[in-house]
Amino acid sequence: MAMTTSAIHDAVRLPPGPVDLASVDTDAAPGFDGKKADGKAALAAMADELSDLQERLWAERTVGSERRVLLVLQGMDTSGKGGVLRHTIGLVDPQGVRITSFKAPTDEERAQDFLWRIEKGLPPAGYIGVFDRSHYEDVLIARVRAFAEPEEIERRYAAINDFEARLSNEGFSIIKCMLHISADEQKARLAERLANPEKHWKYNPGDLDERARWSAYRQAYEVALERTNTDVAPWHVIPSDKKWFRNLAVGQLLLETLRGLDLQWPEADFEVEAETERLAQEAPVQ
Amino acid sequence: MAMTTSAIHDAVRLPPGPVDLASVDTDAAPGFDGKKADGKAALAAMADELSDLQERLWAERTVGSERRVLLVLQGMDTSGKGGVLRHTIGLVDPQGVRITSFKAPTDEERAQDFLWRIEKGLPPAGYIGVFDRSHYEDVLIARVRAFAEPEEIERRYAAINDFEARLSNEGFSIIKCMLHISADEQKARLAERLANPEKHWKYNPGDLDERARWSAYRQAYEVALERTNTDVAPWHVIPSDKKWFRNLAVGQLLLETLRGLDLQWPEADFEVEAETERLAQEAPVQ
Repeated sequence: MAMTTSAIHDAVRLPPGPVDLASVDTDAAPGFDGKKADGKAALAAMADELSDLQERLWAERTVGSERRVLLVLQGMDTSGKGGVLRHTIGLVDPQGVRITSFKAPTDEERAQDFLWRIEKGLPPAGYIGVFDRSHYEDVLIARVRAFAEPEEIERRYAAINDFEARLSNEGFSIIKCMLHISADEQKARLAERLANPEKHWKYNPGDLDERARWSAYRQAYEVALERTNTDVAPWHVIPSDKKWFRNLAVGQLLLETLRGLDLQWPEADFEVEAETERLAQEAPVQ
Repeated sequence: MAMTTSAIHDAVRLPPGPVDLASVDTDAAPGFDGKKADGKAALAAMADELSDLQERLWAERTVGSERRVLLVLQGMDTSGKGGVLRHTIGLVDPQGVRITSFKAPTDEERAQDFLWRIEKGLPPAGYIGVFDRSHYEDVLIARVRAFAEPEEIERRYAAINDFEARLSNEGFSIIKCMLHISADEQKARLAERLANPEKHWKYNPGDLDERARWSAYRQAYEVALERTNTDVAPWHVIPSDKKWFRNLAVGQLLLETLRGLDLQWPEADFEVEAETERLAQEAPVQ
């Protein structure tokens, strides 16, 4: 199974150059030759290794390591950012996870540079940080809805690349995922929310207004992905009409990233034998 | 199975009055008549209901509810606070969980009232917040190590009760758990950490110095539990030599608390039929 899933990594990696999202089959499962049940089993099979690697990352911080992971989740409404949090991030120890959800900026946040609130949401050393939306909203919705001048949007692409390069130098491993669904799939998911009273709370009439700007968002994504698809922080476009593939693909990217860190258990910074002897010889305790 | 586990709730609830921790069998599984495998199965069987209730709590906040849960975990070193986070809290959606770990206070924190940093770590509405250690350290280690004057420690019991009563009025459901292990069990767990190089990072020579103060800690716990065992925020003493029972008992308390909130899915604050029609009639999107 490991051989099967590791091919996902290459299949979803966005190649350099111009981006054409319409050419990506959102209903595909690239790099994986199984069906839904196989995909769910493959994800569940990752849990132990993910947990082990996460604990090593967590342990490393106790001896001063600055390493940490930052998973950036972007995608249109209903693309499944919450589903990835629940099903993929839910596999690892919540103690080592830091999730930051970015909503519309507050007045205080708007008064600062767009990266100000992002800096505040970064994970500490040893954590797997997850951004549910991110600084990319500042070149996506900000562009589509003209919340900033074109010159400012233009400035931001380079600012993002500088920012992510700095994070990479500081010990961050950055995994950027665009959860890519089709307009038809979004329509079906919105209809499902409307049809199910248990899901009404997830629906907002403004969702349809945003949906009407679908092609403008696609263009904004294409520009943003092309301009910020760097070696230290490459983009992955995850076909996400199939929820199970979306969850599996993000899990695989997380697993490969952790594997790539060659994480070792910290060595003892005390005398193991002396402590063992001290414990054995202690005065009665009760 | 539900009938079997619900008895745990009453069995671990600390009755009012003087507390004698030595009389509690730390290796027992009160209120549960199964073995280890049954206990693990019973915990796993809670996952769906826990998830459903947690999502309702999360949904409720979108329509202005202030309700939230605060789980306070206290216990001696190796008592398994981390294990509860991994195995019990790990069952629910990490998106709705806020874990705050309290270490030795910083200079900045020390310059403020002891509840200052606690306030900052409280979960927002809709969250299940977990305190890995808490304001109780300020009447436990602070008392044992004389980090504060006796008069100040005395003041804190009442301050904690006032604080928790205020939280309860503001929509917090408070679950306080003391994970209770025997001195022998702690010795075995420390020896295990010393014997396993993968666990050396969890060991600190200072742990043995604290262990030598075992009876002083027990006394401090007994006083603290008695003085802060209120109706709105009662204590539970969880026998924790059996890790599976510890995880199950905390899960059961969390489940009962969420059940008690009678959580309902929010009603739509928009016209469902009109939106359904609007979605059906939309201009082509792509």
